[in-house]
Amino acid sequence: MRYLVTFSYDGTLFQGYESQPNLRTVENELKKVLKFINNKDTKIIASGRTDKGVHALKQCAHVDIDVDITEYKLKRAMNSLLPSDIHVISTKIVDNNFHARYMVKEKVYEYKLNIGEYNPCERNYIYQYNKALNIDLMNDAIKDFIGKHDFTSFTPNKDKKDNCVREIYDAFIKKENDIVTFTFRGNGFIKYQIRNMVGLLIQIGNGKKKKDCIKDILFNKDRSQGFRTAHAEGLYLVDIKY
Amino acid sequence: MRYLVTFSYDGTLFQGYESQPNLRTVENELKKVLKFINNKDTKIIASGRTDKGVHALKQCAHVDIDVDITEYKLKRAMNSLLPSDIHVISTKIVDNNFHARYMVKEKVYEYKLNIGEYNPCERNYIYQYNKALNIDLMNDAIKDFIGKHDFTSFTPNKDKKDNCVREIYDAFIKKENDIVTFTFRGNGFIKYQIRNMVGLLIQIGNGKKKKDCIKDILFNKDRSQGFRTAHAEGLYLVDIKY
Repeated sequence: MRYLVTFSYDGTLFQGYESQPNLRTVENELKKVLKFINNKDTKIIASGRTDKGVHALKQCAHVDIDVDITEYKLKRAMNSLLPSDIHVISTKIVDNNFHARYMVKEKVYEYKLNIGEYNPCERNYIYQYNKALNIDLMNDAIKDFIGKHDFTSFTPNKDKKDNCVREIYDAFIKKENDIVTFTFRGNGFIKYQIRNMVGLLIQIGNGKKKKDCIKDILFNKDRSQGFRTAHAEGLYLVDIKY
Repeated sequence: MRYLVTFSYDGTLFQGYESQPNLRTVENELKKVLKFINNKDTKIIASGRTDKGVHALKQCAHVDIDVDITEYKLKRAMNSLLPSDIHVISTKIVDNNFHARYMVKEKVYEYKLNIGEYNPCERNYIYQYNKALNIDLMNDAIKDFIGKHDFTSFTPNKDKKDNCVREIYDAFIKKENDIVTFTFRGNGFIKYQIRNMVGLLIQIGNGKKKKDCIKDILFNKDRSQGFRTAHAEGLYLVDIKY
Protein backbone atom coordinates (compact mmCIF):
# COMPACT_ATOMS: atom_id res chain seq x y z
CA MET A 1 0.00 0.00 0.00
CA ARG A 2 1.19 3.51 -0.82
CA TYR A 3 0.71 6.14 1.88
CA LEU A 4 0.90 9.90 1.67
CA VAL A 5 2.58 10.98 4.90
CA THR A 6 2.18 14.63 5.94
CA PHE A 7 4.64 15.75 8.59
CA SER A 8 6.31 18.70 10.28
CA TYR A 9 9.78 19.21 11.70
CA ASP A 10 11.95 21.65 13.57
CA GLY A 11 15.04 22.03 11.37
CA THR A 12 17.28 23.41 14.14
CA LEU A 13 19.06 20.18 15.05
CA PHE A 14 19.05 18.56 11.58
CA GLN A 15 21.64 18.78 8.83
CA GLY A 16 18.78 19.32 6.39
CA TYR A 17 16.06 17.00 5.12
CA GLU A 18 18.02 14.71 2.86
CA SER A 19 19.79 11.53 3.99
CA GLN A 20 23.52 11.88 4.50
CA PRO A 21 25.79 9.25 6.00
CA ASN A 22 26.60 9.79 9.70
CA LEU A 23 24.62 13.03 9.92
CA ARG A 24 21.32 13.66 11.68
CA THR A 25 18.83 14.38 8.90
CA VAL A 26 15.03 14.26 8.81
CA GLU A 27 15.02 11.57 6.12
CA ASN A 28 17.42 9.37 8.10
CA GLU A 29 15.14 9.55 11.16
CA LEU A 30 12.05 8.71 9.07
CA LYS A 31 13.83 5.79 7.40
CA LYS A 32 14.87 4.32 10.77
CA VAL A 33 11.26 4.39 11.96
CA LEU A 34 9.86 3.01 8.69
CA LYS A 35 12.39 0.17 8.67
CA PHE A 36 11.13 -0.83 12.11
CA ILE A 37 7.43 -0.61 11.13
CA ASN A 38 7.81 -2.18 7.65
CA ASN A 39 10.43 -4.77 8.70
CA LYS A 40 12.77 -3.74 5.87
CA ASP A 41 14.61 -0.80 4.33
CA THR A 42 11.86 1.51 3.09
CA LYS A 43 12.25 4.40 0.66
CA ILE A 44 10.56 7.66 1.46
CA ILE A 45 10.00 10.10 -1.43
CA ALA A 46 9.40 13.64 -0.21
CA SER A 47 8.04 16.62 -2.18
CA GLY A 48 11.58 18.01 -2.08
CA ARG A 49 14.46 18.79 0.26
CA THR A 50 14.90 21.54 2.76
CA ASP A 51 18.31 22.87 3.79
CA LYS A 52 20.06 22.71 7.15
CA GLY A 53 18.17 24.73 9.78
CA VAL A 54 15.03 25.18 7.64
CA HIS A 55 11.71 24.14 9.23
CA ALA A 56 8.61 22.47 7.81
CA LEU A 57 5.11 22.99 9.15
CA LYS A 58 3.81 20.77 6.35
CA GLN A 59 6.01 18.51 4.31
CA CYS A 60 4.69 15.55 2.28
CA ALA A 61 6.18 12.24 1.24
CA HIS A 62 5.01 8.90 -0.07
CA VAL A 63 6.02 5.49 1.22
CA ASP A 64 5.14 1.93 0.24
CA ILE A 65 4.35 -0.23 3.26
CA ASP A 66 3.94 -4.00 2.91
CA VAL A 67 2.63 -4.77 6.38
CA ASP A 68 -1.09 -4.42 7.01
CA ILE A 69 -1.60 -1.21 8.98
CA THR A 70 -4.41 1.36 9.07
CA GLU A 71 -3.78 5.04 8.33
CA TYR A 72 -4.37 5.94 11.97
CA LYS A 73 -2.11 3.22 13.31
CA LEU A 74 0.70 4.18 10.94
CA LYS A 75 0.52 7.77 12.22
CA ARG A 76 0.48 6.56 15.83
CA ALA A 77 3.35 4.10 15.29
CA MET A 78 5.54 6.66 13.54
CA ASN A 79 4.92 9.35 16.17
CA SER A 80 5.67 6.97 19.01
CA LEU A 81 9.05 6.17 17.46
CA LEU A 82 10.09 9.54 16.01
CA PRO A 83 12.15 12.09 17.98
CA SER A 84 10.30 15.13 19.37
CA ASP A 85 11.46 17.39 16.53
CA ILE A 86 9.58 15.45 13.81
CA HIS A 87 5.82 14.88 13.89
CA VAL A 88 3.48 12.99 11.55
CA ILE A 89 0.33 15.09 11.08
CA SER A 90 -1.56 12.57 8.95
CA THR A 91 -1.22 9.45 6.82
CA LYS A 92 -3.50 8.61 3.92
CA ILE A 93 -3.68 5.61 1.61
CA VAL A 94 -3.20 6.82 -1.97
CA ASP A 95 -3.18 5.35 -5.47
CA ASN A 96 -0.04 3.43 -6.42
CA ASN A 97 0.58 6.04 -9.13
CA PHE A 98 0.72 8.88 -6.64
CA HIS A 99 4.15 10.50 -6.52
CA ALA A 100 4.97 13.02 -3.78
CA ARG A 101 7.62 14.83 -5.83
CA TYR A 102 6.44 14.69 -9.45
CA MET A 103 2.81 15.50 -8.73
CA VAL A 104 3.36 18.68 -6.69
CA LYS A 105 1.14 21.48 -8.05
CA GLU A 106 2.12 24.16 -5.57
CA LYS A 107 4.53 24.79 -2.71
CA VAL A 108 4.14 27.52 -0.14
CA TYR A 109 7.05 28.88 1.88
CA GLU A 110 7.13 31.54 4.57
CA TYR A 111 10.11 33.49 5.78
CA LYS A 112 9.97 35.24 9.16
CA LEU A 113 12.21 37.99 10.49
CA ASN A 114 12.14 40.28 13.52
CA ILE A 115 12.78 43.99 12.98
CA GLY A 116 12.43 44.79 16.72
CA GLU A 117 14.59 43.97 19.72
CA TYR A 118 16.50 40.66 19.71
CA ASN A 119 14.36 37.92 21.26
CA PRO A 120 16.36 34.92 22.51
CA CYS A 121 13.27 32.66 22.45
CA GLU A 122 12.93 33.24 18.70
CA ARG A 123 16.58 32.85 17.75
CA ASN A 124 16.18 29.46 16.03
CA TYR A 125 12.76 30.21 14.51
CA ILE A 126 12.71 33.83 13.35
CA TYR A 127 15.68 35.56 11.76
CA GLN A 128 16.82 38.24 14.22
CA TYR A 129 17.45 41.14 11.87
CA ASN A 130 16.71 43.62 14.70
CA LYS A 131 16.87 46.76 12.59
CA ALA A 132 14.24 48.83 10.81
CA LEU A 133 13.16 47.95 7.25
CA ASN A 134 10.93 49.82 4.84
CA ILE A 135 8.19 47.21 4.47
CA ASP A 136 6.14 49.20 1.91
CA LEU A 137 9.15 49.39 -0.40
CA MET A 138 9.75 45.65 -0.03
CA ASN A 139 6.08 44.88 -0.64
CA ASP A 140 6.21 46.86 -3.89
CA ALA A 141 9.44 45.17 -4.98
CA ILE A 142 8.37 41.59 -4.18
CA LYS A 143 5.69 41.80 -6.91
CA ASP A 144 8.47 41.63 -9.54
CA PHE A 145 9.11 38.02 -8.50
CA ILE A 146 5.56 36.99 -9.45
CA GLY A 147 5.27 35.14 -12.77
CA LYS A 148 7.44 32.72 -14.73
CA HIS A 149 11.13 33.65 -14.55
CA ASP A 150 14.59 32.14 -14.94
CA PHE A 151 15.91 32.26 -11.35
CA THR A 152 19.56 31.50 -12.22
CA SER A 153 20.60 34.70 -10.39
CA PHE A 154 19.07 33.32 -7.18
CA THR A 155 20.86 29.98 -6.88
CA PRO A 156 24.55 29.32 -6.10
CA ASN A 157 26.74 29.13 -9.23
CA LYS A 158 27.91 25.63 -8.43
CA ASP A 159 24.33 24.44 -8.13
CA LYS A 160 23.11 25.85 -11.43
CA LYS A 161 20.62 23.50 -12.95
CA ASP A 162 19.91 23.06 -16.65
CA ASN A 163 16.56 24.64 -16.02
CA CYS A 164 16.11 27.38 -13.42
CA VAL A 165 12.74 28.51 -14.76
CA ARG A 166 10.07 28.49 -12.07
CA GLU A 167 6.71 30.16 -11.72
CA ILE A 168 5.76 32.18 -8.65
CA TYR A 169 1.98 32.43 -8.30
CA ASP A 170 1.96 34.93 -5.48
CA ALA A 171 4.38 36.73 -3.16
CA PHE A 172 3.63 39.23 -0.44
CA ILE A 173 4.83 40.56 2.91
CA LYS A 174 2.86 41.07 6.10
CA LYS A 175 3.96 42.76 9.31
CA GLU A 176 2.51 41.98 12.72
CA ASN A 177 4.12 43.91 15.56
CA ASP A 178 7.83 43.45 14.89
CA ILE A 179 7.53 40.21 12.94
CA VAL A 180 7.69 40.43 9.15
CA THR A 181 6.45 37.40 7.21
CA PHE A 182 7.24 36.88 3.52
CA THR A 183 4.96 34.38 1.74
CA PHE A 184 5.88 32.75 -1.58
CA ARG A 185 3.55 30.44 -3.53
CA GLY A 186 4.91 28.74 -6.62
CA ASN A 187 5.19 25.57 -8.66
CA GLY A 188 8.62 24.89 -7.15
CA PHE A 189 11.76 26.61 -5.92
CA ILE A 190 15.45 25.96 -6.66
CA LYS A 191 18.21 25.72 -4.07
CA TYR A 192 18.51 28.87 -1.89
CA GLN A 193 16.02 30.67 -4.16
CA ILE A 194 13.75 31.91 -1.38
CA ARG A 195 16.56 32.83 1.00
CA ASN A 196 18.28 34.74 -1.84
CA MET A 197 15.06 36.51 -2.81
CA VAL A 198 14.53 37.46 0.86
CA GLY A 199 18.18 38.55 1.13
CA LEU A 200 17.71 40.90 -1.82
CA LEU A 201 14.38 42.20 -0.45
CA ILE A 202 16.11 42.99 2.87
CA GLN A 203 18.67 45.06 0.97
CA ILE A 204 15.83 46.89 -0.78
CA GLY A 205 14.17 47.46 2.60
CA ASN A 206 17.33 48.90 4.15
CA GLY A 207 18.15 51.09 1.14
CA LYS A 208 21.23 49.24 -0.09
CA LYS A 209 19.50 48.21 -3.33
CA LYS A 210 17.00 50.07 -5.50
CA LYS A 211 13.36 49.00 -5.43
CA ASP A 212 13.32 48.28 -9.18
CA CYS A 213 16.50 46.15 -9.35
CA ILE A 214 14.77 42.76 -9.38
CA LYS A 215 13.86 42.71 -13.08
CA ASP A 216 17.46 43.46 -14.08
CA ILE A 217 18.90 40.87 -11.71
CA LEU A 218 16.52 38.20 -13.06
CA PHE A 219 17.43 39.23 -16.64
CA ASN A 220 21.19 39.08 -15.99
CA LYS A 221 21.11 35.39 -14.92
CA ASP A 222 24.18 35.94 -12.77
CA ARG A 223 24.45 35.03 -9.08
CA SER A 224 27.27 37.47 -8.35
CA GLN A 225 24.96 40.43 -7.69
CA GLY A 226 26.20 41.11 -4.19
CA PHE A 227 23.13 40.24 -2.14
CA ARG A 228 23.19 37.93 0.84
CA THR A 229 21.43 34.62 1.40
CA ALA A 230 19.02 35.16 4.31
CA HIS A 231 19.60 32.92 7.35
CA ALA A 232 18.05 29.43 7.30
CA GLU A 233 16.22 29.64 10.64
CA GLY A 234 13.57 32.06 9.34
CA LEU A 235 12.42 29.74 6.54
CA TYR A 236 9.39 27.42 6.75
CA LEU A 237 7.90 25.04 4.20
CA VAL A 238 4.23 25.60 5.09
CA ASP A 239 2.18 23.79 2.44
CA ILE A 240 2.33 21.38 -0.46
CA LYS A 241 -0.60 21.11 -2.85
CA TYR A 242 -1.23 18.15 -5.16
CA MET B 1 26.54 53.57 40.01
CA ARG B 2 23.41 51.44 40.28
CA TYR B 3 21.90 50.23 37.01
CA LEU B 4 18.51 48.72 36.31
CA VAL B 5 19.15 46.00 33.75
CA THR B 6 16.15 44.75 31.76
CA PHE B 7 16.77 41.46 29.98
CA SER B 8 15.16 38.45 28.31
CA TYR B 9 16.13 34.80 28.16
CA ASP B 10 15.19 31.49 26.63
CA GLY B 11 14.89 29.14 29.62
CA THR B 12 15.27 25.92 27.59
CA LEU B 13 18.94 25.30 28.24
CA PHE B 14 19.14 26.78 31.74
CA GLN B 15 18.65 25.08 35.11
CA GLY B 16 16.51 28.06 36.11
CA TYR B 17 17.42 31.66 36.88
CA GLU B 18 19.20 31.34 40.20
CA SER B 19 22.92 30.64 40.63
CA GLN B 20 23.77 27.04 41.42
CA PRO B 21 27.27 25.61 41.54
CA ASN B 22 28.31 23.73 38.38
CA LEU B 23 24.98 24.26 36.65
CA ARG B 24 24.16 26.52 33.73
CA THR B 25 21.86 29.20 35.14
CA VAL B 26 20.92 32.66 33.89
CA GLU B 27 22.36 34.35 36.99
CA ASN B 28 25.68 32.50 36.61
CA GLU B 29 26.01 33.70 33.02
CA LEU B 30 25.19 37.29 34.00
CA LYS B 31 27.69 37.21 36.87
CA LYS B 32 30.48 35.96 34.60
CA VAL B 33 29.88 38.85 32.21
CA LEU B 34 29.58 41.45 35.00
CA LYS B 35 32.79 40.25 36.62
CA PHE B 36 34.56 40.86 33.34
CA ILE B 37 33.04 44.34 32.85
CA ASN B 38 33.29 45.46 36.51
CA ASN B 39 36.68 43.83 37.15
CA LYS B 40 35.40 42.05 40.29
CA ASP B 41 32.69 39.73 41.59
CA THR B 42 29.44 41.65 41.15
CA LYS B 43 26.11 40.86 42.71
CA ILE B 44 23.01 40.97 40.56
CA ILE B 45 19.64 41.29 42.32
CA ALA B 46 16.74 40.21 40.12
CA SER B 47 13.02 40.84 40.65
CA GLY B 48 12.75 37.14 41.48
CA ARG B 49 13.65 33.66 40.24
CA THR B 50 12.22 31.63 37.43
CA ASP B 51 12.28 27.83 37.38
CA LYS B 52 14.11 25.49 35.04
CA GLY B 53 12.74 25.75 31.50
CA VAL B 54 10.74 28.95 32.18
CA HIS B 55 11.36 31.89 29.82
CA ALA B 56 11.51 35.64 30.40
CA LEU B 57 10.59 38.23 27.79
CA LYS B 58 11.23 40.92 30.40
CA GLN B 59 13.11 40.32 33.63
CA CYS B 60 14.67 43.10 35.70
CA ALA B 61 17.66 43.25 38.03
CA HIS B 62 19.88 45.87 39.62
CA VAL B 63 23.66 45.88 39.69
CA ASP B 64 26.26 48.24 41.14
CA ILE B 65 29.07 48.97 38.70
CA ASP B 66 32.20 50.79 39.81
CA VAL B 67 33.79 51.38 36.43
CA ASP B 68 32.72 54.41 34.43
CA ILE B 69 30.41 53.18 31.66
CA THR B 70 27.39 54.72 29.92
CA GLU B 71 24.02 52.99 29.88
CA TYR B 72 24.35 52.25 26.18
CA LYS B 73 27.88 50.90 26.48
CA LEU B 74 26.90 48.64 29.37
CA LYS B 75 24.10 47.15 27.25
CA ARG B 76 26.47 46.72 24.31
CA ALA B 77 29.23 45.20 26.45
CA MET B 78 26.88 42.74 28.15
CA ASN B 79 25.26 41.63 24.89
CA SER B 80 28.62 41.12 23.20
CA LEU B 81 29.68 38.78 26.04
CA LEU B 82 26.41 36.98 26.85
CA PRO B 83 25.39 33.69 25.18
CA SER B 84 22.68 33.88 22.48
CA ASP B 85 19.93 32.74 24.88
CA ILE B 86 20.20 35.83 27.14
CA HIS B 87 19.74 39.38 25.87
CA VAL B 88 19.97 42.75 27.59
CA ILE B 89 17.08 44.93 26.35
CA SER B 90 18.08 48.08 28.22
CA THR B 91 20.20 49.47 31.06
CA LYS B 92 19.30 52.56 33.05
CA ILE B 93 21.12 54.42 35.81
CA VAL B 94 18.87 54.45 38.89
CA ASP B 95 18.94 55.88 42.40
CA ASN B 96 21.16 54.01 44.88
CA ASN B 97 18.03 53.18 46.87
CA PHE B 98 16.40 51.37 43.97
CA HIS B 99 15.90 47.68 44.69
CA ALA B 100 14.85 45.31 41.89
CA ARG B 101 13.19 42.80 44.25
CA TYR B 102 11.70 44.83 47.09
CA MET B 103 10.28 47.60 44.94
CA VAL B 104 8.31 45.42 42.49
CA LYS B 105 4.73 46.72 42.18
CA GLU B 106 3.47 44.22 39.65
CA LYS B 107 4.59 41.12 37.80
CA VAL B 108 2.97 39.81 34.64
CA TYR B 109 3.24 36.20 33.54
CA GLU B 110 1.85 34.46 30.48
CA TYR B 111 1.33 30.75 29.96
CA LYS B 112 0.94 29.39 26.43
CA LEU B 113 -0.46 26.03 25.34
CA ASN B 114 -1.42 24.49 22.02
CA ILE B 115 -4.78 22.69 21.79
CA GLY B 116 -4.24 21.76 18.12
CA GLU B 117 -1.86 19.36 16.39
CA TYR B 118 1.60 18.89 17.93
CA ASN B 119 4.04 21.41 16.47
CA PRO B 120 7.71 20.39 16.82
CA CYS B 121 8.89 24.00 16.34
CA GLU B 122 6.93 25.04 19.44
CA ARG B 123 7.92 22.17 21.70
CA ASN B 124 10.22 24.22 23.96
CA TYR B 125 8.10 27.39 23.91
CA ILE B 126 4.42 26.39 24.02
CA TYR B 127 3.10 23.49 26.08
CA GLN B 128 1.89 20.87 23.60
CA TYR B 129 -1.39 19.84 25.20
CA ASN B 130 -2.78 18.88 21.76
CA LYS B 131 -6.31 18.13 22.90
CA ALA B 132 -9.50 20.17 23.04
CA LEU B 133 -10.28 22.37 26.07
CA ASN B 134 -13.42 24.30 26.95
CA ILE B 135 -11.94 27.80 26.97
CA ASP B 136 -15.18 29.54 28.01
CA LEU B 137 -15.38 27.38 31.12
CA MET B 138 -11.75 28.11 31.98
CA ASN B 139 -12.25 31.84 31.40
CA ASP B 140 -15.16 31.83 33.86
CA ALA B 141 -13.18 29.83 36.43
CA ILE B 142 -9.97 31.89 36.24
CA LYS B 143 -11.84 34.92 37.67
CA ASP B 144 -11.89 33.15 41.06
CA PHE B 145 -8.13 33.65 41.29
CA ILE B 146 -8.48 37.44 41.12
CA GLY B 147 -8.10 39.21 44.46
CA LYS B 148 -6.06 38.68 47.61
CA HIS B 149 -5.84 34.98 48.56
CA ASP B 150 -3.73 32.56 50.52
CA PHE B 151 -2.18 30.41 47.75
CA THR B 152 -0.84 27.64 50.04
CA SER B 153 -2.77 25.07 47.95
CA PHE B 154 -0.81 26.13 44.87
CA THR B 155 2.77 25.68 46.10
CA PRO B 156 4.61 22.43 46.91
CA ASN B 157 4.24 21.36 50.55
CA LYS B 158 7.97 21.40 51.14
CA ASP B 159 8.18 24.97 49.88
CA LYS B 160 5.44 26.37 52.04
CA LYS B 161 6.33 29.84 53.14
CA ASP B 162 5.18 31.58 56.29
CA ASN B 163 3.12 33.82 54.10
CA CYS B 164 1.48 32.54 50.93
CA VAL B 165 -0.90 35.48 50.62
CA ARG B 166 -0.61 37.19 47.24
CA GLU B 167 -2.87 39.48 45.29
CA ILE B 168 -3.84 38.81 41.69
CA TYR B 169 -4.92 42.02 39.95
CA ASP B 170 -6.17 40.40 36.78
CA ALA B 171 -6.30 36.98 35.12
CA PHE B 172 -7.77 36.06 31.75
CA ILE B 173 -7.44 33.64 28.85
CA LYS B 174 -7.25 34.40 25.13
CA LYS B 175 -7.31 31.97 22.23
CA GLU B 176 -5.78 32.69 18.85
CA ASN B 177 -6.07 29.82 16.38
CA ASP B 178 -4.91 26.82 18.44
CA ILE B 179 -2.79 28.79 20.91
CA VAL B 180 -4.32 29.52 24.31
CA THR B 181 -2.63 32.26 26.37
CA PHE B 182 -3.28 32.67 30.10
CA THR B 183 -2.29 36.08 31.52
CA PHE B 184 -1.77 36.70 35.24
CA ARG B 185 -1.03 40.14 36.74
CA GLY B 186 -0.26 40.33 40.44
CA ASN B 187 1.92 41.76 43.17
CA GLY B 188 3.98 38.57 43.24
CA PHE B 189 3.72 34.80 42.83
CA ILE B 190 5.01 31.94 44.96
CA LYS B 191 6.90 28.89 43.68
CA TYR B 192 4.95 26.90 41.06
CA GLN B 193 1.84 29.05 41.75
CA ILE B 194 1.14 29.91 38.12
CA ARG B 195 1.92 26.45 36.77
CA ASN B 196 -0.36 24.95 39.44
CA MET B 197 -3.15 27.43 38.70
CA VAL B 198 -2.83 26.62 34.98
CA GLY B 199 -2.74 22.88 35.77
CA LEU B 200 -6.02 23.19 37.64
CA LEU B 201 -7.58 25.33 34.91
CA ILE B 202 -6.64 22.68 32.32
CA GLN B 203 -8.50 20.10 34.42
CA ILE B 204 -11.52 22.42 34.51
CA GLY B 205 -11.26 22.84 30.73
CA ASN B 206 -11.15 19.08 30.11
CA GLY B 207 -13.97 18.30 32.54
CA LYS B 208 -11.93 16.55 35.26
CA LYS B 209 -12.64 19.30 37.79
CA LYS B 210 -15.74 21.40 38.34
CA LYS B 211 -15.72 25.04 37.26
CA ASP B 212 -16.43 26.29 40.78
CA CYS B 213 -13.75 24.26 42.62
CA ILE B 214 -11.20 27.07 42.89
CA LYS B 215 -12.70 28.85 45.90
CA ASP B 216 -12.78 25.59 47.92
CA ILE B 217 -9.23 24.67 46.96
CA LEU B 218 -7.96 28.11 48.00
CA PHE B 219 -9.91 27.84 51.26
CA ASN B 220 -8.56 24.35 52.08
CA LYS B 221 -4.90 25.53 52.00
CA ASP B 222 -3.79 22.03 51.06
CA ARG B 223 -1.59 21.20 48.10
CA SER B 224 -2.77 17.57 47.81
CA GLN B 225 -5.78 18.38 45.66
CA GLY B 226 -4.80 16.12 42.76
CA PHE B 227 -4.09 18.68 40.05
CA ARG B 228 -0.96 18.70 37.99
CA THR B 229 1.75 21.35 37.70
CA ALA B 230 1.67 22.56 34.07
CA HIS B 231 4.93 22.10 32.11
CA ALA B 232 7.60 24.77 32.49
CA GLU B 233 8.14 25.47 28.77
CA GLY B 234 4.80 27.29 28.39
CA LEU B 235 5.56 29.89 31.06
CA TYR B 236 6.92 33.40 30.38
CA LEU B 237 7.74 36.25 32.73
CA VAL B 238 6.56 39.10 30.48
CA ASP B 239 6.71 42.26 32.57
CA ILE B 240 7.86 43.75 35.86
CA LYS B 241 6.48 47.08 37.00
CA TYR B 242 8.13 49.31 39.62
